[in-house]
Amino acid sequence: MRRGIFITFEGPDGAGKTTQIHRLRDYLISKGTDLVLTREPGGTRIGEKIREIILDPEYQEMADLTEALLYASSRAQHVAEVIFPALKSGKTVICDRFMDSSIAYQGYGRKLGEKVRIINEIAVLGLIPDLTFLLLVDPGEGRRRISDGFLDRLELEEMQYHEEVYRGYMELAAQNTERMIVIDGSLKIDEISVKIIKETTAFLRRHQG
Amino acid sequence: MRRGIFITFEGPDGAGKTTQIHRLRDYLISKGTDLVLTREPGGTRIGEKIREIILDPEYQEMADLTEALLYASSRAQHVAEVIFPALKSGKTVICDRFMDSSIAYQGYGRKLGEKVRIINEIAVLGLIPDLTFLLLVDPGEGRRRISDGFLDRLELEEMQYHEEVYRGYMELAAQNTERMIVIDGSLKIDEISVKIIKETTAFLRRHQG
Repeated sequence: MRRGIFITFEGPDGAGKTTQIHRLRDYLISKGTDLVLTREPGGTRIGEKIREIILDPEYQEMADLTEALLYASSRAQHVAEVIFPALKSGKTVICDRFMDSSIAYQGYGRKLGEKVRIINEIAVLGLIPDLTFLLLVDPGEGRRRISDGFLDRLELEEMQYHEEVYRGYMELAAQNTERMIVIDGSLKIDEISVKIIKETTAFLRRHQG
Repeated sequence: MRRGIFITFEGPDGAGKTTQIHRLRDYLISKGTDLVLTREPGGTRIGEKIREIILDPEYQEMADLTEALLYASSRAQHVAEVIFPALKSGKTVICDRFMDSSIAYQGYGRKLGEKVRIINEIAVLGLIPDLTFLLLVDPGEGRRRISDGFLDRLELEEMQYHEEVYRGYMELAAQNTERMIVIDGSLKIDEISVKIIKETTAFLRRHQG
Protein backbone atom coordinates (compact mmCIF):
# COMPACT_ATOMS: atom_id res chain seq x y z
CA MET A 1 0.00 0.00 0.00
CA ARG A 2 1.13 3.51 -0.85
CA ARG A 3 2.01 5.66 2.16
CA GLY A 4 -0.50 8.45 2.89
CA ILE A 5 0.14 12.16 2.43
CA PHE A 6 1.27 14.26 5.40
CA ILE A 7 0.09 17.89 5.40
CA THR A 8 0.92 20.39 8.16
CA PHE A 9 -0.31 23.90 8.91
CA GLU A 10 2.02 26.45 10.47
CA GLY A 11 2.03 30.09 11.51
CA PRO A 12 1.28 32.24 14.54
CA ASP A 13 -2.05 32.00 16.37
CA GLY A 14 -4.63 34.28 14.86
CA ALA A 15 -3.48 33.81 11.26
CA GLY A 16 -6.55 31.71 10.51
CA LYS A 17 -5.08 28.18 10.58
CA THR A 18 -8.09 26.47 12.18
CA THR A 19 -10.63 27.74 9.65
CA GLN A 20 -8.42 26.72 6.75
CA ILE A 21 -7.68 23.30 8.21
CA HIS A 22 -11.40 22.57 8.52
CA ARG A 23 -12.04 23.73 4.97
CA LEU A 24 -9.28 21.54 3.54
CA ARG A 25 -10.48 18.59 5.62
CA ASP A 26 -14.07 19.03 4.38
CA TYR A 27 -12.88 19.31 0.79
CA LEU A 28 -10.69 16.20 0.96
CA ILE A 29 -13.41 14.16 2.69
CA SER A 30 -15.88 15.24 -0.02
CA LYS A 31 -13.44 13.74 -2.53
CA GLY A 32 -13.47 10.45 -0.66
CA THR A 33 -10.12 10.83 1.13
CA ASP A 34 -9.52 8.67 4.18
CA LEU A 35 -8.24 11.34 6.55
CA VAL A 36 -6.91 11.86 10.08
CA LEU A 37 -6.93 15.36 11.57
CA THR A 38 -4.65 15.89 14.57
CA ARG A 39 -2.83 18.67 16.37
CA GLU A 40 0.25 19.56 18.40
CA PRO A 41 1.04 19.72 21.19
CA GLY A 42 -1.11 16.82 22.28
CA GLY A 43 -2.70 14.28 20.00
CA THR A 44 -2.11 11.40 22.46
CA ARG A 45 -2.88 10.93 26.14
CA ILE A 46 0.83 10.87 27.01
CA GLY A 47 1.22 14.07 24.98
CA GLU A 48 -1.66 15.70 26.86
CA LYS A 49 -0.03 14.76 30.16
CA ILE A 50 3.28 16.27 29.01
CA ARG A 51 1.41 19.38 27.85
CA GLU A 52 -0.09 19.81 31.33
CA ILE A 53 3.44 20.10 32.73
CA ILE A 54 4.54 22.57 30.02
CA LEU A 55 1.52 24.83 30.55
CA ASP A 56 1.29 24.61 34.36
CA PRO A 57 1.84 28.20 35.62
CA GLU A 58 3.20 26.66 38.82
CA TYR A 59 6.47 25.79 37.07
CA GLN A 60 7.98 29.25 36.57
CA GLU A 61 11.45 27.77 37.00
CA MET A 62 11.20 25.64 33.85
CA ALA A 63 14.33 26.06 31.70
CA ASP A 64 13.78 26.85 28.00
CA LEU A 65 15.65 23.70 27.05
CA THR A 66 13.45 21.56 29.32
CA GLU A 67 10.41 23.02 27.58
CA ALA A 68 11.88 22.30 24.13
CA LEU A 69 12.67 18.69 25.13
CA LEU A 70 9.18 18.21 26.56
CA TYR A 71 7.61 19.41 23.31
CA ALA A 72 9.88 16.98 21.46
CA SER A 73 8.85 14.11 23.79
CA SER A 74 5.20 14.81 23.09
CA ARG A 75 5.92 14.95 19.36
CA ALA A 76 7.86 11.64 19.42
CA GLN A 77 4.82 9.96 20.96
CA HIS A 78 2.46 11.63 18.51
CA VAL A 79 4.50 10.43 15.52
CA ALA A 80 4.94 6.89 16.85
CA GLU A 81 1.36 6.39 18.04
CA VAL A 82 -0.80 8.42 15.62
CA ILE A 83 0.91 9.90 12.56
CA PHE A 84 3.13 7.05 11.37
CA PRO A 85 0.49 4.32 11.78
CA ALA A 86 -2.08 6.44 9.88
CA LEU A 87 0.35 7.22 7.03
CA LYS A 88 1.42 3.57 6.84
CA SER A 89 -2.19 2.47 6.46
CA GLY A 90 -2.50 4.86 3.50
CA LYS A 91 -4.45 7.65 5.25
CA THR A 92 -3.92 11.35 4.60
CA VAL A 93 -2.86 13.13 7.82
CA ILE A 94 -3.45 16.85 8.44
CA CYS A 95 -1.61 18.16 11.50
CA ASP A 96 -2.15 21.57 13.12
CA ARG A 97 1.47 22.56 13.88
CA PHE A 98 4.47 20.24 13.70
CA MET A 99 8.24 20.56 14.12
CA ASP A 100 8.46 23.87 12.23
CA SER A 101 6.57 25.42 15.18
CA SER A 102 9.26 24.29 17.60
CA ILE A 103 12.03 25.62 15.37
CA ALA A 104 10.26 28.98 14.98
CA TYR A 105 9.10 29.42 18.60
CA GLN A 106 11.90 27.79 20.58
CA GLY A 107 14.77 27.89 18.09
CA TYR A 108 14.24 31.49 16.93
CA GLY A 109 11.82 33.01 19.49
CA ARG A 110 13.64 31.70 22.56
CA LYS A 111 17.00 31.73 20.79
CA LEU A 112 17.81 28.06 21.41
CA GLY A 113 19.04 27.82 17.82
CA GLU A 114 20.06 24.63 16.05
CA LYS A 115 19.58 22.50 19.17
CA VAL A 116 15.83 22.54 18.59
CA ARG A 117 16.15 21.31 15.02
CA ILE A 118 18.48 18.48 16.06
CA ILE A 119 16.24 17.32 18.93
CA ASN A 120 13.18 17.38 16.71
CA GLU A 121 14.76 15.59 13.78
CA ILE A 122 15.43 12.76 16.20
CA ALA A 123 11.93 12.94 17.73
CA VAL A 124 10.09 12.62 14.40
CA LEU A 125 12.10 9.58 13.22
CA GLY A 126 12.96 11.38 9.97
CA LEU A 127 9.33 12.15 9.09
CA ILE A 128 9.06 15.34 7.00
CA PRO A 129 5.70 16.78 5.91
CA ASP A 130 4.88 16.41 2.22
CA LEU A 131 3.18 19.79 2.19
CA THR A 132 3.22 22.64 4.72
CA PHE A 133 0.94 25.67 4.55
CA LEU A 134 2.47 28.60 6.38
CA LEU A 135 -0.11 31.28 7.14
CA LEU A 136 1.59 34.51 8.09
CA VAL A 137 0.40 37.88 9.30
CA ASP A 138 2.90 40.65 9.96
CA PRO A 139 3.61 40.46 13.71
CA GLY A 140 4.34 44.13 14.31
CA GLU A 141 1.78 45.91 12.21
CA GLY A 142 -1.30 45.65 14.44
CA ARG A 143 0.71 46.31 17.57
CA ARG A 144 2.46 49.36 16.21
CA ARG A 145 -0.79 50.90 15.09
CA ILE A 146 -2.45 50.44 18.49
CA SER A 147 0.47 51.83 20.47
CA ASP A 148 1.12 54.85 18.22
CA GLY A 149 4.77 53.82 18.23
CA PHE A 150 5.25 53.82 22.02
CA LEU A 151 5.84 50.45 23.68
CA ASP A 152 6.90 49.69 27.25
CA ARG A 153 9.75 47.26 27.96
CA LEU A 154 7.56 44.16 28.24
CA GLU A 155 5.57 45.02 25.14
CA LEU A 156 8.82 45.61 23.32
CA GLU A 157 10.22 42.26 24.46
CA GLU A 158 7.02 40.52 23.46
CA MET A 159 7.09 42.20 20.07
CA GLN A 160 10.72 41.26 19.52
CA TYR A 161 9.85 37.66 20.39
CA HIS A 162 7.03 37.56 17.83
CA GLU A 163 9.25 39.19 15.24
CA GLU A 164 11.90 36.53 15.84
CA VAL A 165 9.26 33.80 15.39
CA TYR A 166 8.16 35.47 12.16
CA ARG A 167 11.75 35.66 10.95
CA GLY A 168 12.19 31.98 11.87
CA TYR A 169 9.19 30.98 9.80
CA MET A 170 10.44 33.04 6.84
CA GLU A 171 13.84 31.36 6.99
CA LEU A 172 12.23 27.93 7.22
CA ALA A 173 10.15 28.76 4.15
CA ALA A 174 13.28 29.85 2.26
CA GLN A 175 15.09 26.61 3.24
CA ASN A 176 12.17 24.31 2.40
CA THR A 177 10.68 25.63 -0.81
CA GLU A 178 9.91 22.09 -2.00
CA ARG A 179 7.26 21.60 0.69
CA MET A 180 6.42 24.98 2.31
CA ILE A 181 3.88 27.31 0.79
CA VAL A 182 3.72 30.77 2.33
CA ILE A 183 0.26 32.31 2.41
CA ASP A 184 -0.60 35.90 3.30
CA GLY A 185 -3.05 35.51 6.20
CA SER A 186 -4.47 38.98 5.57
CA LEU A 187 -6.15 37.79 2.36
CA LYS A 188 -9.85 36.90 2.35
CA ILE A 189 -10.74 33.52 3.85
CA ASP A 190 -12.18 32.27 0.57
CA GLU A 191 -9.14 33.37 -1.42
CA ILE A 192 -6.90 31.49 0.99
CA SER A 193 -8.92 28.30 0.93
CA VAL A 194 -9.09 28.28 -2.85
CA LYS A 195 -5.30 28.61 -2.95
CA ILE A 196 -4.77 25.82 -0.39
CA ILE A 197 -7.11 23.43 -2.19
CA LYS A 198 -5.45 24.23 -5.52
CA GLU A 199 -1.96 23.57 -4.13
CA THR A 200 -3.10 20.36 -2.45
CA THR A 201 -4.79 19.10 -5.61
CA ALA A 202 -1.68 19.88 -7.66
CA PHE A 203 0.47 18.05 -5.13
CA LEU A 204 -1.80 15.02 -5.14
CA ARG A 205 -1.75 14.93 -8.95
CA ARG A 206 2.07 15.01 -8.99
CA HIS A 207 2.28 12.48 -6.17
CA GLN A 208 -0.26 10.00 -7.54
CA GLY A 209 0.43 10.59 -11.20
CA MET B 1 35.73 31.62 42.17
CA ARG B 2 36.88 28.23 40.94
CA ARG B 3 34.11 25.98 39.60
CA GLY B 4 33.25 23.03 41.85
CA ILE B 5 34.00 19.36 41.07
CA PHE B 6 31.31 17.20 39.47
CA ILE B 7 31.38 13.50 40.44
CA THR B 8 28.91 10.91 39.14
CA PHE B 9 28.21 7.29 40.08
CA GLU B 10 27.09 4.82 37.45
CA GLY B 11 26.28 1.15 37.09
CA PRO B 12 23.32 -1.21 37.37
CA ASP B 13 21.10 -1.26 40.44
CA GLY B 14 22.43 -3.63 43.06
CA ALA B 15 26.09 -2.90 42.38
CA GLY B 16 26.35 -0.95 45.64
CA LYS B 17 26.26 2.65 44.39
CA THR B 18 24.20 4.09 47.26
CA THR B 19 26.49 2.77 50.00
CA GLN B 20 29.55 4.10 48.21
CA ILE B 21 28.00 7.48 47.50
CA HIS B 22 27.21 7.94 51.19
CA ARG B 23 30.72 6.93 52.19
CA LEU B 24 32.33 9.36 49.76
CA ARG B 25 29.96 12.12 50.86
CA ASP B 26 30.79 11.52 54.54
CA TYR B 27 34.50 11.50 53.79
CA LEU B 28 34.41 14.74 51.77
CA ILE B 29 32.26 16.51 54.36
CA SER B 30 34.69 15.43 57.11
CA LYS B 31 37.40 17.20 55.06
CA GLY B 32 35.35 20.40 55.03
CA THR B 33 33.98 20.12 51.47
CA ASP B 34 30.89 22.17 50.63
CA LEU B 35 28.86 19.46 48.93
CA VAL B 36 25.55 18.83 47.14
CA LEU B 37 24.27 15.26 46.79
CA THR B 38 21.62 14.72 44.15
CA ARG B 39 20.21 11.95 41.96
CA GLU B 40 18.62 11.17 38.62
CA PRO B 41 15.95 10.92 37.49
CA GLY B 42 14.45 13.62 39.65
CA GLY B 43 16.36 16.16 41.66
CA THR B 44 13.82 18.95 40.91
CA ARG B 45 10.04 19.18 41.25
CA ILE B 46 9.62 19.41 37.46
CA GLY B 47 11.88 16.36 37.16
CA GLU B 48 9.78 14.45 39.70
CA LYS B 49 6.65 15.30 37.72
CA ILE B 50 8.28 14.04 34.51
CA ARG B 51 9.40 10.92 36.34
CA GLU B 52 5.79 10.20 37.36
CA ILE B 53 4.84 10.05 33.68
CA ILE B 54 7.79 7.81 32.79
CA LEU B 55 7.07 5.35 35.59
CA ASP B 56 3.24 5.35 35.38
CA PRO B 57 2.28 1.74 34.49
CA GLU B 58 -0.83 3.20 32.83
CA TYR B 59 1.24 4.35 29.84
CA GLN B 60 2.12 1.01 28.24
CA GLU B 61 2.01 2.67 24.80
CA MET B 62 4.98 4.96 25.54
CA ALA B 63 7.50 4.86 22.69
CA ASP B 64 11.14 4.21 23.63
CA LEU B 65 12.12 7.53 22.07
CA THR B 66 9.48 9.40 24.09
CA GLU B 67 10.93 7.85 27.23
CA ALA B 68 14.48 8.84 26.24
CA LEU B 69 13.36 12.43 25.52
CA LEU B 70 11.49 12.63 28.85
CA TYR B 71 14.61 11.51 30.72
CA ALA B 72 16.57 14.17 28.84
CA SER B 73 13.98 16.85 29.73
CA SER B 74 14.26 15.96 33.38
CA ARG B 75 18.07 16.07 33.11
CA ALA B 76 18.03 19.48 31.38
CA GLN B 77 16.03 20.89 34.29
CA HIS B 78 18.29 19.20 36.83
CA VAL B 79 21.42 20.67 35.24
CA ALA B 80 19.95 24.18 34.85
CA GLU B 81 18.33 24.38 38.28
CA VAL B 82 20.58 22.37 40.60
CA ILE B 83 23.90 21.15 39.20
CA PHE B 84 25.19 24.19 37.29
CA PRO B 85 24.31 26.74 40.01
CA ALA B 86 26.01 24.56 42.67
CA LEU B 87 29.15 24.08 40.56
CA LYS B 88 29.28 27.79 39.73
CA SER B 89 29.16 28.68 43.41
CA GLY B 90 32.19 26.43 43.96
CA LYS B 91 30.39 23.44 45.50
CA THR B 92 31.29 19.81 44.86
CA VAL B 93 28.35 17.93 43.34
CA ILE B 94 27.88 14.17 43.64
CA CYS B 95 25.16 12.80 41.37
CA ASP B 96 23.69 9.29 41.53
CA ARG B 97 23.41 8.47 37.78
CA PHE B 98 23.82 10.99 34.96
CA MET B 99 23.85 10.87 31.17
CA ASP B 100 25.97 7.70 30.99
CA SER B 101 22.92 5.90 32.42
CA SER B 102 20.77 7.05 29.52
CA ILE B 103 23.39 6.02 26.98
CA ALA B 104 23.76 2.59 28.59
CA TYR B 105 20.06 1.87 29.27
CA GLN B 106 18.32 3.58 26.35
CA GLY B 107 21.14 3.81 23.80
CA TYR B 108 22.45 0.23 24.26
CA GLY B 109 19.72 -1.56 26.26
CA ARG B 110 16.81 -0.30 24.17
CA LYS B 111 18.98 -0.04 21.05
CA LEU B 112 18.23 3.63 20.35
CA GLY B 113 21.92 4.13 19.63
CA GLU B 114 23.62 7.47 18.99
CA LYS B 115 20.33 9.40 19.20
CA VAL B 116 20.45 9.15 22.97
CA ARG B 117 23.95 10.57 23.17
CA ILE B 118 23.03 13.50 20.89
CA ILE B 119 19.85 14.37 22.81
CA ASN B 120 21.68 14.22 26.11
CA GLU B 121 24.68 16.26 25.01
CA ILE B 122 22.18 19.01 24.20
CA ALA B 123 20.26 18.53 27.47
CA VAL B 124 23.33 18.91 29.72
CA LEU B 125 24.56 22.12 28.03
CA GLY B 126 27.99 20.57 27.49
CA LEU B 127 28.48 19.60 31.14
CA ILE B 128 30.71 16.52 31.50
CA PRO B 129 31.47 14.92 34.87
CA ASP B 130 35.01 15.43 36.15
CA LEU B 131 35.03 11.96 37.66
CA THR B 132 32.71 8.99 37.17
CA PHE B 133 32.78 5.85 39.27
CA LEU B 134 31.32 2.93 37.37
CA LEU B 135 30.43 0.05 39.68
CA LEU B 136 29.88 -3.11 37.71
CA VAL B 137 28.73 -6.60 38.56
CA ASP B 138 28.52 -9.24 35.86
CA PRO B 139 24.89 -9.19 34.71
CA GLY B 140 24.55 -12.85 33.74
CA GLU B 141 26.43 -14.70 36.42
CA GLY B 142 23.82 -14.73 39.20
CA ARG B 143 20.98 -15.37 36.79
CA ARG B 144 22.69 -18.24 35.07
CA ARG B 145 23.47 -19.93 38.35
CA ILE B 146 19.86 -19.74 39.57
CA SER B 147 18.35 -21.02 36.35
CA ASP B 148 20.80 -23.90 35.85
CA GLY B 149 21.17 -22.64 32.30
CA PHE B 150 17.48 -22.81 31.36
CA LEU B 151 15.75 -19.47 30.75
CA ASP B 152 12.32 -18.82 29.29
CA ARG B 153 11.83 -16.25 26.53
CA LEU B 154 11.12 -13.30 28.85
CA GLU B 155 14.01 -14.14 31.14
CA LEU B 156 16.23 -14.45 28.11
CA GLU B 157 15.10 -11.07 26.77
CA GLU B 158 15.63 -9.49 30.15
CA MET B 159 19.08 -11.00 30.40
CA GLN B 160 20.00 -9.84 26.92
CA TYR B 161 18.85 -6.34 27.87
CA HIS B 162 21.04 -6.29 30.98
CA GLU B 163 23.95 -7.66 29.00
CA GLU B 164 23.53 -4.87 26.44
CA VAL B 165 23.51 -2.29 29.26
CA TYR B 166 26.67 -3.86 30.66
CA ARG B 167 28.30 -3.77 27.24
CA GLY B 168 27.24 -0.12 26.88
CA TYR B 169 28.88 0.80 30.16
CA MET B 170 32.06 -1.02 29.19
CA GLU B 171 32.23 0.85 25.87
CA LEU B 172 31.62 4.16 27.64
CA ALA B 173 34.46 3.36 30.02
CA ALA B 174 36.76 2.57 27.09
CA GLN B 175 35.82 5.85 25.35
CA ASN B 176 36.16 8.02 28.48
CA THR B 177 39.24 6.76 30.27
CA GLU B 178 40.13 10.30 31.40
CA ARG B 179 37.12 10.46 33.72
CA MET B 180 35.62 6.97 34.15
CA ILE B 181 36.95 4.58 36.74
CA VAL B 182 35.62 1.03 36.52
CA ILE B 183 35.21 -0.72 39.85
CA ASP B 184 34.44 -4.38 40.39
CA GLY B 185 31.26 -4.30 42.48
CA SER B 186 31.93 -7.81 43.77
CA LEU B 187 34.83 -6.58 45.90
CA LYS B 188 34.36 -5.92 49.63
CA ILE B 189 32.55 -2.67 50.50
CA ASP B 190 35.57 -1.36 52.40
CA GLU B 191 37.96 -2.15 49.58
CA ILE B 192 35.73 -0.26 47.15
CA SER B 193 35.34 2.80 49.33
CA VAL B 194 39.10 3.00 49.96
CA LYS B 195 39.66 2.90 46.21
CA ILE B 196 37.01 5.59 45.53
CA ILE B 197 38.37 7.91 48.20
CA LYS B 198 41.93 7.39 46.91
CA GLU B 199 40.93 8.20 43.33
CA THR B 200 38.93 11.25 44.43
CA THR B 201 41.79 12.57 46.55
CA ALA B 202 44.24 12.07 43.67
CA PHE B 203 41.88 13.91 41.34
CA LEU B 204 41.44 16.81 43.78
CA ARG B 205 45.20 17.07 44.18
CA ARG B 206 45.71 17.25 40.41
CA HIS B 207 42.79 19.64 39.99
CA GLN B 208 43.68 22.00 42.80
CA GLY B 209 47.45 21.68 42.56
